[in-house]
Amino acid sequence: MRTRTGCSFALRIVAVAALALAPSAAARAESPEDCRSPWGPDDQRGAINRLTPAKTLEAARLITEGKIYQLGRVYEAGMPLYGLRSYNSITPEMRGPLGPNKLTWNEEYIAAQLGQVGTQFDGLGHIGINGRFFNCNEARDFVRAEGLQKLGVENVGSFFTRGVLIDVAAYKGVARMEKGYEISVDDLKGALAKEGLNLREGDAVILHTGWGSLWMKDNAMFNSGAPGIGLAAGEWLAEQKVVLVGADTGGVEVAPNPEHPQAEAIVHQLMITRNGINFLENLDTSGLARDKIYEFAFVFSPLKLKGASGSPGNPIAVR
Amino acid sequence: MRTRTGCSFALRIVAVAALALAPSAAARAESPEDCRSPWGPDDQRGAINRLTPAKTLEAARLITEGKIYQLGRVYEAGMPLYGLRSYNSITPEMRGPLGPNKLTWNEEYIAAQLGQVGTQFDGLGHIGINGRFFNCNEARDFVRAEGLQKLGVENVGSFFTRGVLIDVAAYKGVARMEKGYEISVDDLKGALAKEGLNLREGDAVILHTGWGSLWMKDNAMFNSGAPGIGLAAGEWLAEQKVVLVGADTGGVEVAPNPEHPQAEAIVHQLMITRNGINFLENLDTSGLARDKIYEFAFVFSPLKLKGASGSPGNPIAVR
Amino acid sequence: MRTRTGCSFALRIVAVAALALAPSAAARAESPEDCRSPWGPDDQRGAINRLTPAKTLEAARLITEGKIYQLGRVYEAGMPLYGLRSYNSITPEMRGPLGPNKLTWNEEYIAAQLGQVGTQFDGLGHIGINGRFFNCNEARDFVRAEGLQKLGVENVGSFFTRGVLIDVAAYKGVARMEKGYEISVDDLKGALAKEGLNLREGDAVILHTGWGSLWMKDNAMFNSGAPGIGLAAGEWLAEQKVVLVGADTGGVEVAPNPEHPQAEAIVHQLMITRNGINFLENLDTSGLARDKIYEFAFVFSPLKLKGASGSPGNPIAVR
Amino acid sequence: MRTRTGCSFALRIVAVAALALAPSAAARAESPEDCRSPWGPDDQRGAINRLTPAKTLEAARLITEGKIYQLGRVYEAGMPLYGLRSYNSITPEMRGPLGPNKLTWNEEYIAAQLGQVGTQFDGLGHIGINGRFFNCNEARDFVRAEGLQKLGVENVGSFFTRGVLIDVAAYKGVARMEKGYEISVDDLKGALAKEGLNLREGDAVILHTGWGSLWMKDNAMFNSGAPGIGLAAGEWLAEQKVVLVGADTGGVEVAPNPEHPQAEAIVHQLMITRNGINFLENLDTSGLARDKIYEFAFVFSPLKLKGASGSPGNPIAVR
Repeated sequence: MRTRTGCSFALRIVAVAALALAPSAAARAESPEDCRSPWGPDDQRGAINRLTPAKTLEAARLITEGKIYQLGRVYEAGMPLYGLRSYNSITPEMRGPLGPNKLTWNEEYIAAQLGQVGTQFDGLGHIGINGRFFNCNEARDFVRAEGLQKLGVENVGSFFTRGVLIDVAAYKGVARMEKGYEISVDDLKGALAKEGLNLREGDAVILHTGWGSLWMKDNAMFNSGAPGIGLAAGEWLAEQKVVLVGADTGGVEVAPNPEHPQAEAIVHQLMITRNGINFLENLDTSGLARDKIYEFAFVFSPLKLKGASGSPGNPIAVR
Repeated sequence: MRTRTGCSFALRIVAVAALALAPSAAARAESPEDCRSPWGPDDQRGAINRLTPAKTLEAARLITEGKIYQLGRVYEAGMPLYGLRSYNSITPEMRGPLGPNKLTWNEEYIAAQLGQVGTQFDGLGHIGINGRFFNCNEARDFVRAEGLQKLGVENVGSFFTRGVLIDVAAYKGVARMEKGYEISVDDLKGALAKEGLNLREGDAVILHTGWGSLWMKDNAMFNSGAPGIGLAAGEWLAEQKVVLVGADTGGVEVAPNPEHPQAEAIVHQLMITRNGINFLENLDTSGLARDKIYEFAFVFSPLKLKGASGSPGNPIAVR
Repeated sequence: MRTRTGCSFALRIVAVAALALAPSAAARAESPEDCRSPWGPDDQRGAINRLTPAKTLEAARLITEGKIYQLGRVYEAGMPLYGLRSYNSITPEMRGPLGPNKLTWNEEYIAAQLGQVGTQFDGLGHIGINGRFFNCNEARDFVRAEGLQKLGVENVGSFFTRGVLIDVAAYKGVARMEKGYEISVDDLKGALAKEGLNLREGDAVILHTGWGSLWMKDNAMFNSGAPGIGLAAGEWLAEQKVVLVGADTGGVEVAPNPEHPQAEAIVHQLMITRNGINFLENLDTSGLARDKIYEFAFVFSPLKLKGASGSPGNPIAVR
Repeated sequence: MRTRTGCSFALRIVAVAALALAPSAAARAESPEDCRSPWGPDDQRGAINRLTPAKTLEAARLITEGKIYQLGRVYEAGMPLYGLRSYNSITPEMRGPLGPNKLTWNEEYIAAQLGQVGTQFDGLGHIGINGRFFNCNEARDFVRAEGLQKLGVENVGSFFTRGVLIDVAAYKGVARMEKGYEISVDDLKGALAKEGLNLREGDAVILHTGWGSLWMKDNAMFNSGAPGIGLAAGEWLAEQKVVLVGADTGGVEVAPNPEHPQAEAIVHQLMITRNGINFLENLDTSGLARDKIYEFAFVFSPLKLKGASGSPGNPIAVR
């Protein structure tokens, strides 16, 4: 991507590393073109622009058994949450009865940083670099009390594409990878080779690290960090022109980042802000890993929450 | 359905009509078997049990163009809401910058009767008859402050099935059907015949009435009632063993109900409580109707909101 | 007040009127001193600084009958709300029983623009002029996602002072004043003379217009406007060095403003932003007016909501 | 109290102890009269009925210095919370500017188990014994999704009464009493004697244990238990006909309860359910204790939250 700007990925890695070391200088040095979307100045969708009817058909052809795997986790009180976020689902007493047919009903009230709790899809309005978001959008121009005036998740559309599970844990021969382990490009290539697969433009990549086995089992450990990709693996995935990267961790990226221990969510910035590639976090990848399902139709349709930075979801893998 | 109980549909129509006239007597007269799920005493999912790998494959084969239609509406302040429900999405000022990489981010807080506002999926815990819900579950046994202990939407699974749009408005030759018009069995049959389609077991049926054109245009009118199915059409759809009925209205069923003007959501009771068939409301069916797409892969994966009566969503039709 | 800056009130009225006509020019023309609090550069409390132990004692001496009037309205679904604000109070099913003593309990979940719904206290962080708030605080410097870093309502303290009800409706000889009627300085002086009272420094002034009789009776009318003070009466009240102005209307000030029909909440700006005088809205003044209680101990202790712009409340008048 | 029923307090202590050991038997043995309010079958207010104009005047006469102590804590993210309760205050970006006067404003959205987080007032609808609440109200008769149909906090009224701080910590010679220490009747009598005070009918009693010094300093410890009153001290306080008991702890009562280690909030049941005496929790009593202010006008006016079990607040002590 970004071929329009003639910016090679090797150079980009250097640029990002420089950013981590001297961010303000780097940010200022960045030319206006660097943050521009390859899909034009009005683009609010990013990498999903790569999805085409042909890609949808390619995905549909992968459905040969009719088996569905749900990748979404249950939203519930007590699930791991980042920082001071919270999730409240309040069930009032049953209502009614009303009318001669004695209608009774339930409805709950939900209050949460929805889209940033549990299984969550990071939209392009979620992450920025010093106030600058995807496609050179400055926070002061689009962040409003009523919602994001640009890059809202209602613009992104739906994913129906080829999904590839990269079972990095299996490749490394462990059930659960270690906290702080940075998945390398060689790890990704090696795991894919073991699975007999290649990545193609428009794919959704799902990483299985085994870290998700801690979910609701040891939330403190789950929240304390995670294995995941660093800048190098992120760059490589962006180079493959994937449209989405998901994982069974809270942030997809390695935490803490061994290369950039002071940095905060630096791989988010690389993927989301710079490359327009969405993250999908806190997936339940255990079924796919158990059944060794590595290639499938990946279907996910984010809620059209106006002006929102993300969406909850229950993506599915169909085989 | 309900063949296990030997209960004919003709008789069931009579029973429901009787319920409307003398509900408490009818409710008392109902034998324990009448409320039992055909899928066993532990069943919490209802009609979706009819979905099989074969049905998924049937749906996948309908994807011949790779075109995706989003059926979900935008969730936003000012959208039509039922009663005193509300939808709040609060966007704080951008956060950060954090760290040497100057991470900045947005995250919103959403508070609503989620699952019962905007595009909404009615789960089996939503609607009951005098406190008795699907599969003979009594409210006192499963409605808890922490959420429904049975029939929660996290149990339902995902829909990947053949979808059929029944464009009743086109069949009636109008852009928008009238409020209070009860769609008859003949209307459904006639519209299907016009489209050259039959319903099959496991289908998701989506009704286009044109009423959705009022959404965000004339919310007061939109909320004042709607065209929709009555008990007769509901019975017929249940007899076809469909798994879900959706529409471009707030309640799928006719309102006010010309046959049962005093009744409250009586078709909800028939379909959800008695037959375990989910409703999907406030769909945007305009694209399908415009393009005359009547048969498609219907994909919808409700959020796994623990113990919830419903789910928001952005279902898709893939052709 | 503002004697430090040598700015006469006559001049201030001119300045505000000019602001309404040519706001940006006026705002730019304003010297840095104009927005400074008389209580120093670190002041976050405003006019309440005028309250002293002597004033508390003065108020306590007004308590001669031991009679308490609650001025707060009931917070409830269906109450009049401004714009798209909402108020949700969700009562779950009773919890428990727990333990051998069979503890059962209720607790509700409340979600609202609390502090800006129902009876509400406008703190100094609520209202600004083009981003500049009380004591020259610029929004960019103190508005944060986590709450206001300055001027938060937790700083204001508690009011225990002489309260004066000005029954303007009685003075005008009506039960309910007209929407859009601007209460004049002569109205205030006349009503006070009729009541045999004068205002003194540190008083809390409560206006009875009769508009509150529409509350929960005709919410649409209640919300459509109100009688209230304009800039002239506001200036005069500020000149009397009152600490708070309350009313039985949603905004204390006249709406629409006959002098400044295009202006938005311009009297809020005068009182809150420029003079540090809090507003208290949607009061129930009916009991005081009925019993002709014009002088009393006014007691109100805002919730210490960290970084909040306002507070809900149930102020009392004690006689 | 309960003199109408002729039930001696010595007997009541035995009855409560029996309840803890064999609650269902005890509950069944309880005669209908036992749960009746002394203020009649329609009473929804409980002990506050003891407050009279004379008592208000008694309180006002205690105001001799004009000094105000705020007893309410700051509501903020990160404060100690019970169980899975949460407190969210979301501040959107500043709104506006609107109109020629360039109105800008802030308003926050608050979502919480309000009334049961931070400084909190326990209303009579909060606590019951096996579904039976104050004045023999059964949960099934008054707990509704829309709020409590009886005993809602909007009924209670306002407290303006004599307040007495019992500094138990000072009496015991410690800065902070130990977790699980049960304050005895002798402790209360001894501390009062040291302070030279007696309790009178209608008083609000505030306990200083020093436990509040952990607030926001060591939340885990703060939440892990507390010193407080047990059944014996609770009975004695009820016998003094106080109207409210507050403390600098999360529950006023000792936790864990050394006499009834399996019991849950058993002193809540004694005071609130049986005696109609409200609790006021998480108070900041440090100022009063520091200044040795033991007798004062106590003023607290709960929010009129319709159908709510409790209220947040910022009570004041005025001297």
